[in-house]
Amino acid sequence: MIPPLYWNDEAFRVELLDQTLLPVEERWIPIETPEQMAEAIRKLRVRGAPAIGIAASYGVVLALRAPESHVEMVRKAIALLRQTRPTAVNLFGALRRMEAVADAYATADRHTLAQRLLAEARAIESEDREAGRRLGAYGLEVLKEGMRVLTHCHTGGVATSGYGTALAPFILGKERGIRLEAWVDETRPLLQGSRITAWELQKAGVPATLITDSMAAHVMQRGWVDAVIVGADRIAANGDVANKIGTYGLAVLARAHGIPFYVSAPISTIDFETPSGEAIVIEERDPREITHGFGRQTAPEGIRVYNPAFDVTPASLITAIITDQGILRPPYAEALQALRERLDTPMVSKA
Amino acid sequence: MIPPLYWNDEAFRVELLDQTLLPVEERWIPIETPEQMAEAIRKLRVRGAPAIGIAASYGVVLALRAPESHVEMVRKAIALLRQTRPTAVNLFGALRRMEAVADAYATADRHTLAQRLLAEARAIESEDREAGRRLGAYGLEVLKEGMRVLTHCHTGGVATSGYGTALAPFILGKERGIRLEAWVDETRPLLQGSRITAWELQKAGVPATLITDSMAAHVMQRGWVDAVIVGADRIAANGDVANKIGTYGLAVLARAHGIPFYVSAPISTIDFETPSGEAIVIEERDPREITHGFGRQTAPEGIRVYNPAFDVTPASLITAIITDQGILRPPYAEALQALRERLDTPMVSKA
Repeated sequence: MIPPLYWNDEAFRVELLDQTLLPVEERWIPIETPEQMAEAIRKLRVRGAPAIGIAASYGVVLALRAPESHVEMVRKAIALLRQTRPTAVNLFGALRRMEAVADAYATADRHTLAQRLLAEARAIESEDREAGRRLGAYGLEVLKEGMRVLTHCHTGGVATSGYGTALAPFILGKERGIRLEAWVDETRPLLQGSRITAWELQKAGVPATLITDSMAAHVMQRGWVDAVIVGADRIAANGDVANKIGTYGLAVLARAHGIPFYVSAPISTIDFETPSGEAIVIEERDPREITHGFGRQTAPEGIRVYNPAFDVTPASLITAIITDQGILRPPYAEALQALRERLDTPMVSKA
Repeated sequence: MIPPLYWNDEAFRVELLDQTLLPVEERWIPIETPEQMAEAIRKLRVRGAPAIGIAASYGVVLALRAPESHVEMVRKAIALLRQTRPTAVNLFGALRRMEAVADAYATADRHTLAQRLLAEARAIESEDREAGRRLGAYGLEVLKEGMRVLTHCHTGGVATSGYGTALAPFILGKERGIRLEAWVDETRPLLQGSRITAWELQKAGVPATLITDSMAAHVMQRGWVDAVIVGADRIAANGDVANKIGTYGLAVLARAHGIPFYVSAPISTIDFETPSGEAIVIEERDPREITHGFGRQTAPEGIRVYNPAFDVTPASLITAIITDQGILRPPYAEALQALRERLDTPMVSKA
């Protein structure tokens, strides 16, 4: 398991992995104030929606580090951290929870307030870790000992609380002594696969082989891939999946070679308001990610570029959608609706 | 048409496009001696098998630039140029032709010898250009006005004498007023697509849009691709095609989307001694092309890498093979055999 940060209780601070230095260097930096944490989030030293939420939560606790600190400093820290990444849903959710604790213990002494905030940050982290572990466990129901599994982009531990989404079965499998081998697509244009996934699997001791995106078809043709597993940015109500550009092509190739294609994502990724993939608008990103991808110009000045951030894989190409609440199988519209109804039902203890 | 060099008759020298500076700068460098030409070939300022053969031929002529020069200097130049690229078949073929002319006119005066050598170099260039023009013309029998055609790697003019192989229909189409639009795969790991193809199409005035290799499936899914055309490293006797890594995946994707998939290559690419693609050994290249592709480390130290230089597309996925001697259609074993018999038959004038 590769978490993006540790709480150091003795020093009352966070030890944070500086992800901007990956894959060349693994450097852990001490974070002692909310300001330092806000800066780390802004500078993308910690990235991935769940990881940002967790980092911000611990960032709030740091407001109480100084002996003279008090609840108003906590509130200031929450306001500061909220402004770091304007579109991060997990960030706002986590800070709302921290704020509720601050309100509830506003009149408590500093020590009690700090312990309550710390407990909440730890709860936010461990809930995410538990979801990751469940994703991994369900993933290991379809990915078996010795399988060679191809993955795309980065969906791993440092973007979450340690297990990730599509990487969760690899990481949990390693912990349980189940050997999976990974094919890692480098994932142009931003190379999340080679920069982060390859590093994380290597770090976890999972055998991994890096390829360019254009080599996936060839390794499938040679019979070297037993399954494909990817994460998801959004899952529509009919099971269509929006994910990092290149995912759709892998799904078509997997089908053509008779290889199962799995999506692994927490249920928070499901968007019941989006009826199908056709309703999803494809975000286009800066052409320079392609023409100047590595600090060097590799395409002619003025060339037209198309740089979609993600693509949509139709439900018909997906063998199963693995969630932290179980494995969904086709037909997905029904399976997702059944899941929704189950989630909407308040849990009652068995009489 | 984008040739890799020009013969400058007035200055008795070659003007050579320095391909190492593409796509950032288009610089033409004067080449006045065989030594300068050998250096340019060695430094990859001129690259692509046919272009190297042509460049070396003109390089031989340059041996006669000085007033006191003579046939022994021509022979020295041939020996020097022969050593520049040890595996370049076209290079040896071209130099054999130049040597035969030097032998035949060994006792002629310097002016006559120079004119004969120059005529031979021009013949070598124009034969290749004619083959390129024929490839383009046959290509335009299947690629029609307004089509959006996806291509991979670089198969264009500066690697040959101006038309290239898979790019020939785009370039000739432009000359004839037939508008084709190009989707250009960047072609990892060495980015020949973004560095050279994109530059060359832009230079020729052909509308072109650059994408990463992983985006091809997505643009096909959206209905934006009418055909795919690629070159070939080797065509087996059954029609299987070895070409730049990524080609096979495009062929599978094209088939899945009902898009025709064409191979464009001169008949010199056909290897009748190779029965099928299975007999072709896949060359593996330096892992650093993937891990340090842009002068920067983008993957962790020690990660395992698989870097095949090309892949094999089975004949069953190819709609037609376009050659300079006509268009071949399935079944390819028969079509190739018929072509071979036609080529083996000495041409006789009709009585």
